[in-house]
Amino acid sequence: MTNKIFMLGTFIGVPLSVIGTLMHWPTMVLFTIYCLSIIALASYMGRATESLAIVAGPRIGGLLNATFGNAVELIISIFSLKAGLVGVVLASLTGSVLGNLLLVAGLSFFIGGLKFKRQKFNVHDARHNSGLLMFAIIVAFVIPEVFSMEMNEPKTLTLSIGISIILIALYLAALFFKLVTHRGVYQSAESEAAAAAGHHEQPEWGKWKAIIILLIATLAVAYISENLVHTFHYVAESFGWTELFIGVIIVAIVGNAAEHASAVLMAVKNKMDIAVEIAVGSTLQIAMFVAPVLVLFSLMFETKMPLVFTLPELIAMVSSVLLMVIISNDGESNWFEGLTLVAAYFIMGIGFFLL
Amino acid sequence: MTNKIFMLGTFIGVPLSVIGTLMHWPTMVLFTIYCLSIIALASYMGRATESLAIVAGPRIGGLLNATFGNAVELIISIFSLKAGLVGVVLASLTGSVLGNLLLVAGLSFFIGGLKFKRQKFNVHDARHNSGLLMFAIIVAFVIPEVFSMEMNEPKTLTLSIGISIILIALYLAALFFKLVTHRGVYQSAESEAAAAAGHHEQPEWGKWKAIIILLIATLAVAYISENLVHTFHYVAESFGWTELFIGVIIVAIVGNAAEHASAVLMAVKNKMDIAVEIAVGSTLQIAMFVAPVLVLFSLMFETKMPLVFTLPELIAMVSSVLLMVIISNDGESNWFEGLTLVAAYFIMGIGFFLL
Amino acid sequence: MTNKIFMLGTFIGVPLSVIGTLMHWPTMVLFTIYCLSIIALASYMGRATESLAIVAGPRIGGLLNATFGNAVELIISIFSLKAGLVGVVLASLTGSVLGNLLLVAGLSFFIGGLKFKRQKFNVHDARHNSGLLMFAIIVAFVIPEVFSMEMNEPKTLTLSIGISIILIALYLAALFFKLVTHRGVYQSAESEAAAAAGHHEQPEWGKWKAIIILLIATLAVAYISENLVHTFHYVAESFGWTELFIGVIIVAIVGNAAEHASAVLMAVKNKMDIAVEIAVGSTLQIAMFVAPVLVLFSLMFETKMPLVFTLPELIAMVSSVLLMVIISNDGESNWFEGLTLVAAYFIMGIGFFLL
Repeated sequence: MTNKIFMLGTFIGVPLSVIGTLMHWPTMVLFTIYCLSIIALASYMGRATESLAIVAGPRIGGLLNATFGNAVELIISIFSLKAGLVGVVLASLTGSVLGNLLLVAGLSFFIGGLKFKRQKFNVHDARHNSGLLMFAIIVAFVIPEVFSMEMNEPKTLTLSIGISIILIALYLAALFFKLVTHRGVYQSAESEAAAAAGHHEQPEWGKWKAIIILLIATLAVAYISENLVHTFHYVAESFGWTELFIGVIIVAIVGNAAEHASAVLMAVKNKMDIAVEIAVGSTLQIAMFVAPVLVLFSLMFETKMPLVFTLPELIAMVSSVLLMVIISNDGESNWFEGLTLVAAYFIMGIGFFLL
Repeated sequence: MTNKIFMLGTFIGVPLSVIGTLMHWPTMVLFTIYCLSIIALASYMGRATESLAIVAGPRIGGLLNATFGNAVELIISIFSLKAGLVGVVLASLTGSVLGNLLLVAGLSFFIGGLKFKRQKFNVHDARHNSGLLMFAIIVAFVIPEVFSMEMNEPKTLTLSIGISIILIALYLAALFFKLVTHRGVYQSAESEAAAAAGHHEQPEWGKWKAIIILLIATLAVAYISENLVHTFHYVAESFGWTELFIGVIIVAIVGNAAEHASAVLMAVKNKMDIAVEIAVGSTLQIAMFVAPVLVLFSLMFETKMPLVFTLPELIAMVSSVLLMVIISNDGESNWFEGLTLVAAYFIMGIGFFLL
Repeated sequence: MTNKIFMLGTFIGVPLSVIGTLMHWPTMVLFTIYCLSIIALASYMGRATESLAIVAGPRIGGLLNATFGNAVELIISIFSLKAGLVGVVLASLTGSVLGNLLLVAGLSFFIGGLKFKRQKFNVHDARHNSGLLMFAIIVAFVIPEVFSMEMNEPKTLTLSIGISIILIALYLAALFFKLVTHRGVYQSAESEAAAAAGHHEQPEWGKWKAIIILLIATLAVAYISENLVHTFHYVAESFGWTELFIGVIIVAIVGNAAEHASAVLMAVKNKMDIAVEIAVGSTLQIAMFVAPVLVLFSLMFETKMPLVFTLPELIAMVSSVLLMVIISNDGESNWFEGLTLVAAYFIMGIGFFLL
């Protein structure tokens, strides 16, 4: 039923996006078409990922998901950097962190929790992720902020480059840890049973069909997203929003639509391991991979991007991480914990709206 | 024995308070009478609450307790707001948070721990409370502080109103979660056994007698507290204290005497679930209910109150929450953990005294 | 094999240090000799401590270790204070906290984790230590920083003295808790088994031989360290380093060589209880004993030392504590957690280098 609506959305939305862009339809109309198309495409990405997840196991499935969600953001950000919009890139990185950590995880916990009283996820993974969140946000993002207050610009950039290289190296080490040296070491009896049960589940699509759908949908999302970005300035003016608000809130919601769709889908099916992996894994990919890669990329362009956020952006990320760490550290969720995360997102949304 | 002393304190102190107030006795004398009367009355409130707790179960008992403790503070604060004393109200909110989190919990852990080597409380409740403390203090209090630095006053007030509504909504949702959808879900076998054992315990007073004593004592405490507040300015001058110190330290100690008395009472009886519920529950009620209600109330008065604390107040609350979260998160306490909390309170007390 | 190298290092390095100092050899040569001698001596301290640890049990062994490591720093700092170098003392305190918490613990976790997939340590001790880290750094160090912004100098010093006395009192209370009232209370079955197994292990040296070696090595380290400090100014100039970098990074690495050596040694033998006790216990001794003792000592000298770090120093310590608390709180470690801590140390190292 819902699948049919999304199919219609895709097969009407994508062609309309292409035609509308070429024919320069009114910006407000394009904005609406773009958003709906991306949400429709996201459902395909979610279903394709789920099929792959059944085939490949929960961990690789979650990683794939986070990767495809953030490829879009990486492409958009590189184009923005090329145009010198450093502030917008930092704002949308902040927005992705807040969006994944508070909104994606929050909605998953909330909607999943309406159906199940207590939902469990691998407590070892949760703690592993907590350590990385602390490292990425509270060490690697906070230090350049504070130290840059007493540094000149070239030194701040040097510090940013050093931290970026360390972030990427540790991100790769984390993958090596998860996939090679400690693969399955922290698997609980429960999640093993779930994994075993998962084998009996039939994937909607075969491996290759799923991969092809995932690739095509990703390309389509990327194409539409890029056009979407160019409508933001006009939309902001029409609604009286600041560009910071667009970057932090709108880019994050639309850019993470794929994660939203598939994380909530997994939560409703009580596959919390995957839902959390999508939300937190995506946050970590943004903070430990996309952000430092963008810092290094910016060296090729005229305007360099130091790893220095504005104070409101930084504090919003730090308090989100502390909240998420405390809420997720027991390896359990319920509707109220989800609501708490969503409420924190709303508080920050109001803040960035008024800023 | 002690009960007789408190009975004397009440039946001598309360009439003396009324007569002394009407006859304008010297302020220093009144101050002493007021304080002793409140402490005596608090013992009645503690015993009445305990009787009710035995009848109604530990959770409702704890909630009742926190409610009656903070009703007093809400009334005092509304009168202060009417008089335009926004700074004093924010200081006394800070003081209540610090007092409940560090002094009430600290003394409970310490004195309880002198009698019992290890005291346990429900770890699920502790984690639930940790999430809420993080949300209330580190998200909802920190965000307006940081964002207001780059905002004008009307926007700061709008942000404060938005956050206040979200805080109250989440507080009500938390009650709904605890009392309706997840009532007893996280009850451990131990606490069920304790609850079962509790049924055999005889309450000191019957349900209605306890309620009537609780109501009358609350009214008396409210009446005396209000008069007590008017002596603060004089007392501050006599002792060379600042009004900030009065707000943060003195109001908190006297205003939370009821919580102190009953939390320590519970700790000595090894009913740590109730002791923690009183200390942390009371903190949460202050932060998520009393503070936002006061922000909304202030809109009716000439001087509006934004949810923006001074930096020392905010940092004191943030570090208290982080300390409490780490100390309580294992669901166990001992005398040393109590001493650590009390030591933190002393550090902040010295700080506010010198400020 | 390695023992022979260290023996050579000691019996050649120490005499050379004495002769070189007396004969005023070139500073760069002395610097190298001093560093190598200390590292060689540290191995003796490590082996002596290990022998004592086997005799005295893991806890006392860990305490002894931390004590001997920090005696050196206390002596150096007192001489620095006498010379009025308050900034260098605060920097080297920061460096010791960062070095022990991130580098010593990080290398122990990393190198131990290369050999063992999962290493466990007493989770109760880890949580006890987490509470103390929070108290010492996030309460006792943060409060004077923030409050001093709105205070004059004499008040800041009064606050520092008050906090110092509370820190020392709580440190002594913590020892009383660990060694008297709660000795063995939190011992897990595993660590008891390990302790029992430990009794079968043969110490390298007898009790008195170990104590004598420990004492002589400590004296030699102290003598060489003091001379080493006087080479720092020259070395800094030669390499273009700031004195802050010397204080935070170089002093910490060389000054904590003993802890490094013995903690890693213990980790490789899978005695994580001792390794963690060395790293975190040493941090706590610096923060709760060495730092406040130095504040009180400075009252005798012309230049008083308030407990007020620079903002970069404070933020570096706070984020290190938060990272360590999250990583150690589950009572387990692996190579990746070690690498995360070391990566955080590098980020801070780059920061202080550029500052």
